[in-house]
Amino acid sequence: MRQFLSVLVLLCLLPWQSNVSAQEVRYEIRFPDLPGYTTLKCDFHIHTVFSDGEVWPTVRVREAWREGLDCIALTDHIEHHRHAADVSEDMNRVRERAADLARQLNILLIRGGEMTKETPPGHFNAIFVKDLGPLNDPDLLKQARLATEQGGFVFWNHPWGKWTDTHETLHRNGWLRGIEVCNGPEEPRLANNFRIGLEKNLTLLGNSDIHPPETRTRSTADDHRTMTLVFARQRSIKAVKEALGERRTAVWFHGQVIGRQEWLAPLFERSISDLRPTRREGDRLWLTAENLTSTDIQLERTGRVGPPTLTLPAQATTSFWIAVEPGRPAPSELPYVATNFFIGPDKPLPVKLKIAGSQPE
Amino acid sequence: MRQFLSVLVLLCLLPWQSNVSAQEVRYEIRFPDLPGYTTLKCDFHIHTVFSDGEVWPTVRVREAWREGLDCIALTDHIEHHRHAADVSEDMNRVRERAADLARQLNILLIRGGEMTKETPPGHFNAIFVKDLGPLNDPDLLKQARLATEQGGFVFWNHPWGKWTDTHETLHRNGWLRGIEVCNGPEEPRLANNFRIGLEKNLTLLGNSDIHPPETRTRSTADDHRTMTLVFARQRSIKAVKEALGERRTAVWFHGQVIGRQEWLAPLFERSISDLRPTRREGDRLWLTAENLTSTDIQLERTGRVGPPTLTLPAQATTSFWIAVEPGRPAPSELPYVATNFFIGPDKPLPVKLKIAGSQPE
Amino acid sequence: MRQFLSVLVLLCLLPWQSNVSAQEVRYEIRFPDLPGYTTLKCDFHIHTVFSDGEVWPTVRVREAWREGLDCIALTDHIEHHRHAADVSEDMNRVRERAADLARQLNILLIRGGEMTKETPPGHFNAIFVKDLGPLNDPDLLKQARLATEQGGFVFWNHPWGKWTDTHETLHRNGWLRGIEVCNGPEEPRLANNFRIGLEKNLTLLGNSDIHPPETRTRSTADDHRTMTLVFARQRSIKAVKEALGERRTAVWFHGQVIGRQEWLAPLFERSISDLRPTRREGDRLWLTAENLTSTDIQLERTGRVGPPTLTLPAQATTSFWIAVEPGRPAPSELPYVATNFFIGPDKPLPVKLKIAGSQPE
Amino acid sequence: MRQFLSVLVLLCLLPWQSNVSAQEVRYEIRFPDLPGYTTLKCDFHIHTVFSDGEVWPTVRVREAWREGLDCIALTDHIEHHRHAADVSEDMNRVRERAADLARQLNILLIRGGEMTKETPPGHFNAIFVKDLGPLNDPDLLKQARLATEQGGFVFWNHPWGKWTDTHETLHRNGWLRGIEVCNGPEEPRLANNFRIGLEKNLTLLGNSDIHPPETRTRSTADDHRTMTLVFARQRSIKAVKEALGERRTAVWFHGQVIGRQEWLAPLFERSISDLRPTRREGDRLWLTAENLTSTDIQLERTGRVGPPTLTLPAQATTSFWIAVEPGRPAPSELPYVATNFFIGPDKPLPVKLKIAGSQPE
Repeated sequence: MRQFLSVLVLLCLLPWQSNVSAQEVRYEIRFPDLPGYTTLKCDFHIHTVFSDGEVWPTVRVREAWREGLDCIALTDHIEHHRHAADVSEDMNRVRERAADLARQLNILLIRGGEMTKETPPGHFNAIFVKDLGPLNDPDLLKQARLATEQGGFVFWNHPWGKWTDTHETLHRNGWLRGIEVCNGPEEPRLANNFRIGLEKNLTLLGNSDIHPPETRTRSTADDHRTMTLVFARQRSIKAVKEALGERRTAVWFHGQVIGRQEWLAPLFERSISDLRPTRREGDRLWLTAENLTSTDIQLERTGRVGPPTLTLPAQATTSFWIAVEPGRPAPSELPYVATNFFIGPDKPLPVKLKIAGSQPE
Repeated sequence: MRQFLSVLVLLCLLPWQSNVSAQEVRYEIRFPDLPGYTTLKCDFHIHTVFSDGEVWPTVRVREAWREGLDCIALTDHIEHHRHAADVSEDMNRVRERAADLARQLNILLIRGGEMTKETPPGHFNAIFVKDLGPLNDPDLLKQARLATEQGGFVFWNHPWGKWTDTHETLHRNGWLRGIEVCNGPEEPRLANNFRIGLEKNLTLLGNSDIHPPETRTRSTADDHRTMTLVFARQRSIKAVKEALGERRTAVWFHGQVIGRQEWLAPLFERSISDLRPTRREGDRLWLTAENLTSTDIQLERTGRVGPPTLTLPAQATTSFWIAVEPGRPAPSELPYVATNFFIGPDKPLPVKLKIAGSQPE
Repeated sequence: MRQFLSVLVLLCLLPWQSNVSAQEVRYEIRFPDLPGYTTLKCDFHIHTVFSDGEVWPTVRVREAWREGLDCIALTDHIEHHRHAADVSEDMNRVRERAADLARQLNILLIRGGEMTKETPPGHFNAIFVKDLGPLNDPDLLKQARLATEQGGFVFWNHPWGKWTDTHETLHRNGWLRGIEVCNGPEEPRLANNFRIGLEKNLTLLGNSDIHPPETRTRSTADDHRTMTLVFARQRSIKAVKEALGERRTAVWFHGQVIGRQEWLAPLFERSISDLRPTRREGDRLWLTAENLTSTDIQLERTGRVGPPTLTLPAQATTSFWIAVEPGRPAPSELPYVATNFFIGPDKPLPVKLKIAGSQPE
Repeated sequence: MRQFLSVLVLLCLLPWQSNVSAQEVRYEIRFPDLPGYTTLKCDFHIHTVFSDGEVWPTVRVREAWREGLDCIALTDHIEHHRHAADVSEDMNRVRERAADLARQLNILLIRGGEMTKETPPGHFNAIFVKDLGPLNDPDLLKQARLATEQGGFVFWNHPWGKWTDTHETLHRNGWLRGIEVCNGPEEPRLANNFRIGLEKNLTLLGNSDIHPPETRTRSTADDHRTMTLVFARQRSIKAVKEALGERRTAVWFHGQVIGRQEWLAPLFERSISDLRPTRREGDRLWLTAENLTSTDIQLERTGRVGPPTLTLPAQATTSFWIAVEPGRPAPSELPYVATNFFIGPDKPLPVKLKIAGSQPE
C-alpha cells in the first residue's frame, strides 16, 4: 500500500491542497497575434460572494490562470448584495482580496462593477474604475457619467430589451461604448446584439457572467468560457483599455469567432498553415492543413475545387485531397467561407486557402 | 447561426446559470447495501468562506449532489476565520445558509466545526453539534466535552503526530470516538492512522477537507473524493450518527476500500456477481464477472486456478478463462485476495470468487 | 522504476496483448426490457477483410463485446472482394473464423452477405442464410429468392434512391422485409427512409456498415454505434430472427431513438423513473427524475406545468422544480414530448411524466 | 430532425467513412529537435493479417498518422502465418498494400519481418530489407546474415531470456545491432534489457508489437504507444537507417523517456522553458515553467532550493514559488533530477532548471 501511495503522490497534481509548494497548472489558449498586436484572452464580467456569486475573489484568478485567460474584471453588482447579512458591502475590497494572487500568477486584474437596473434599460458594466463607492446610485445616467469620468469603460450587458432613449443618451455622451454580444453559455439574442453593436459602432464583447465556481480545468475547442479576444499593443491593463476604446476585439463563443471583418480576416489568415501538398496521383492532389488555434475551424467551399466542407480540428493537422486536371498545375488557392467565423449576423467570413509553393510529383 | 444556437440550447446542460428552471444532475456512486443497512456516501470535513474555504455554503451542497454523496458536514474552523474582515464570524450561520438547498436536493446536511489546535494534539472535528458558539474556547478538552454533551461526535483529523496523553484523556472520557484514516487526495500516514484506529477501537473515517471549489462534476473509479461509506439503518442524520457511534463505516480513498473485515467482507461479497460460465472448450472454461460497484476491483490469486491477477473495472463485465481438467467438473470457487480492499495496514481482504451453478458444455 | 512498473501492471488493462490470461471488458448498454421481451442490441451490417473491410472477423466480435452489443451479422459484399489477390473468396469462411470467440464471449453471430448492385436498386443484406456460395449471382431477384428460401431475411441497405419496380417485386414476393433507416454515423436520407419503412410496413433497422476498425472502447450517450434494438422473446439467434420478422425493433442513432409508437411508447415508459418529490416550498415543488437508459432524454413541455425543456442525461438523476398552486395538490402527471424519440419523420413521441404518490410538505 | 442532422454533419468528423472526401486528422507528438537533428517518432515492430495480426496493412498507416508517428515498419512473422488458409504468404506484399496511403499521408514506411525462433535465442526484427523471401529459413544466423547483406538492421525483440552464445555470434558479426528495451504496454524486464543494451553498445529501441487494431485516436501524455525517438539528419528512411546505425535514439514508454545521457541531456534541455519569475514578495519568488513536450515531466530536488518535487504536465505552464533570502539575488539555477528520464536502470537524469535573467521586484 505504501508503494501505491508514493506513486499516487507523483501521479496526481493535488489540485485542491493549499499546500506550501502548491503548483498551479495553466493550459494556454492558442490564437495568433496580429501584426503590431498581441491577442489577449479576457473576461470582463465575473461575480463573487461580494454580490450574488458563490466564490471568494481568489478563486476567479486561479480559474483564469488554469483556463488560459490573460485578463479578468471582477464586476459584482453595485446595488445588489445577496449575502449582505454575512459579507462586507464595500465593493472596493473585491479586487483587493485577489490582487496578490493575480500578481503571482501574472493575471491582469481589473476593478469593475455591474450597474443593475430594471430592463429597460438593463444592466451595464463599468470597468477600469477607481472607486466603486460613489457609483452606488439609483440614477444610471449619473453612474455611467461618474464611471466614465473615473476613466472607466461602460458596456451594455446581455441586452434583453431594445435600444431605448436611455441607451441613446448614454451613447451620445460617450458613457456607453461596448455591448456584450454573447453572455455565458447560451445567447438567444446573439444576432440582435451583433446587429446593434455594428450599427452603433460599439466595442463587441463576450463574457462569462459567471456566478458559481467553474468546473472547467482547461479550455478546449468544445468546452470553453465565452470570452473577448483583445488585440492589444502589449500585455497590460492600460493596453487592454486602449484596445477596448478602439474596438479591437473579437468574441469566442461556443467554438464560434465573432467580430468585425477588419480583425477576423487577419486572425483567420494566421490561424491555419498554408496547405502543404504531400502527393499527386493521377487526378488527385493530397494536401495537409494545420489548424494552429484552439478552436475548430469549419469551412464550406465557395469555388469549384476542394471538399464541399472541411473541418480542421483545433491544434491538429488534417489530410484531404482535391481533384486536379492531369498535366495541369494545381490551383494556388481555394475559395471557401469559414462557417464558424462571423463578420455579421449569419454572415460567415470569406477566406482563401493558399496552397504552398513546391508541389510533389 | 440561429439554428446552431437552438441546437446548443438543447445540447448543453447550462451548469452555471442560476436560471429559474435550472436542472442539477447527479451521478450515483454504486456500492451495495448490506443486510439491514443502506450504504451512505458521506464527507464529514468541509470548509467554506466562513473560515478559510473559498466558496459559499450552497456550493458544497450542489457539489455533494452531483458527485453522488448522501450526507455532508460543514466543518469550518471554530477558532480561525481567515476572512473575518469581510465575512461574519457567527459559525452557526454556515449550515443555515445551505439548509434550503439541501432540503430541495435531499442532501443530509450536518452542523459541525473544526477545533483547531497546534500539533500535538492537532485538529478535531465535532459534528452533530447544536450550538458552535460555546465551542470557541482555547481549551480542547473543554471543547470536546461540550461538543459531546451537545450530542456531538468528535474525531481526530488528519493525524500528523503521535497519540499523546491528551488523546488518551479525550478517548477515555468518550470525547474522541473517530479518526480520519484518509484526508483529501493523499495521505502519507495512512498505514499509521489505520493502525491507531484499529488499536484504539475508533470509528474509521475518510473525508475531503476541501477548501477550494470542487472541479469534479461526477465521481468515477479513477477520480473521486475521499469519503466515508456509512452503513446506516436508514437515510437520515439520526441513522448516520447511530452508525458512526457503532463504527459501521469504510473509507473510499483513491480507488481503495479501507475498513474492518466485519464490513468489508459482506461489502465485497455483494460487489461482484457470481462468475458466469459462457463456454467450455478442452481444458479451458470461459467466465464473465460483473463488477456492480463504482470502484475498480483488483484481485490476486491465492489458490492454484485462475489468472494470477484480475482487474474488474467498475460497472463493467469482464471475460476471462481458467484452466480446467478435461472430463472433471470445474471448481466451484476461486480463492483470491482483493488487493485494493484493506482490512489492516498492508493487509488485503481474502475473498472467494464463486462460479455460478450450471455450466456450459 | 521497478516499483513504477509493477503499479502499471495493476493499473492498465492490457487491451492489446494476445496474452494467455487476457481479459476482455464490456460496458453494457442500458435500455429497459419490454413486457415479454428482452431488448437486444444488434448490428446487422458489418465488413471484414474478406470483402472491403480492413479487419479480421474476430475483431468484430471483440468490438461487439466491449461496446455492449448482443448480436452481430458479418455481411461482406458477396460480389466484391477488394483483397481477392491476397484473401480467400470463400464467403462462408467469414463467420467460421470468428465463431469460437463469439461462443466464448457469448455474442450471437449471424452469417450474412451484402448483395451489391448498382443504384437503383442498390445494396441489400441477406442475413440468417446457410450458404453464401449460390448467392453470388448477377440477378438480384434470384439472390433474394434463394436467400429467403434458405430461411434468410433480406433488407434494403442505406437507400440512396427511389422505391422502384424491382423493390416492389422483391417486396410483393416476401423477398424484401426490412429497411436500414440509418446507416453509419450520418444519414441525410433518414426522414425519407423512415417514411418508406412505415408506408411499406418494413422492419426498421439501423446498422453501422463499418469497414475500418472501431476506435470506440465503449458506448456512451454521445458516442455510440448506429444499432438496432430488437425486442426478442429470448437471447438467441432464433428469437432475433422471429422478432425481425414481426418488426419488433427500434433504431438508436446519434442519441435518437427511432421506431414505431407501438414499441417506443412502452420503451419510454420504462426508461425513466417516476418523478420523486423532494421538497415543497411555497409555490414550488422540487422533483427528481432518474434516466435509467444509456441515452440522454430530451423533453419539451406540451402542457402548462413544468420546465419548457428538460434534458435528462443518461444514467443520471436530474433535479428540477415545477410551479404549484399553494394549498392545492400538485398535478399527478406532466404532458411532454420526447424530442429525441421519433415515431415518424419529424414526429416526436408524446409522453406523460408521472409524479410519484406521496408528496413532501 | 433535419436541422439536427445537418448540424451533426458539421460536428462529427466521420472517422470511419471511406468517403471520397474523407479527412484524416493527426495530432503531433511534441518533442524538441536536437542541434543538427530532427526528432522522429517511430515504431519498428507491427503486425498485420499477413501473420498473426488482425488488420489490413493500410490500417497501420492511418493509425500512425493520427497518433503523430513519422515512421513505421511492418514486421510480420516470417515463419508464422496464422491465417495462411485464407491469406497470401508472400511477405513482400505486406508493405506494398499500404504504400500508396503512406505516400499520401507522408508516413515513412519500412519493409521488415520478424525472425521467430524459440527462446533462446528468441525473436528478432530485420528492417530495411529488400526481399523477405530468402529470409524464411530455419537458421537464425543465416537469416540475420542475409538481412544484413541486404542492407538491413537487425534487433532483438522483447528479450525474454539471457544473452547466449548465439547472441554473441550475431553481435560479433554485426548481424545484431539493436535491442527492444520496451515492447508494448508493459515490460517487466525493462531494467534488464536496458542494462544489456548499454553493456553491448546496442541501439536502444521501444516498439508497440501491436497485433489487434489500435483504439487510440491520438497520443497523450497518459496514453501513448511505446515508441522510439530517432534523432535523424532529416525526415527520410535513409536518415532513419543512418541514425539507428549510430544509436541516436531514445524510448518513450508510459510517460518515461529512456536512453543514453548523451541524447537525453540535450533533449531535456530543450523540453522546458527557462523558469520565468512573475513576482517577488518577501522571502518568496514566484516562477512559471512551460513544458514544451507531449510528456509530463517529473522532477525531484537535489539541491536546497525549490519544491521537493515538481510535476510539469505536458504542453502546460506550471506556476510555483521558491524560498529566497530577502535582499539577496535569487539563485540562477536549481539542481533537480528528472525522475521519468532514465539514463540507466534506476538512474534518473540530473538536470539544472535555469531561472530567466530579469527578475521582478
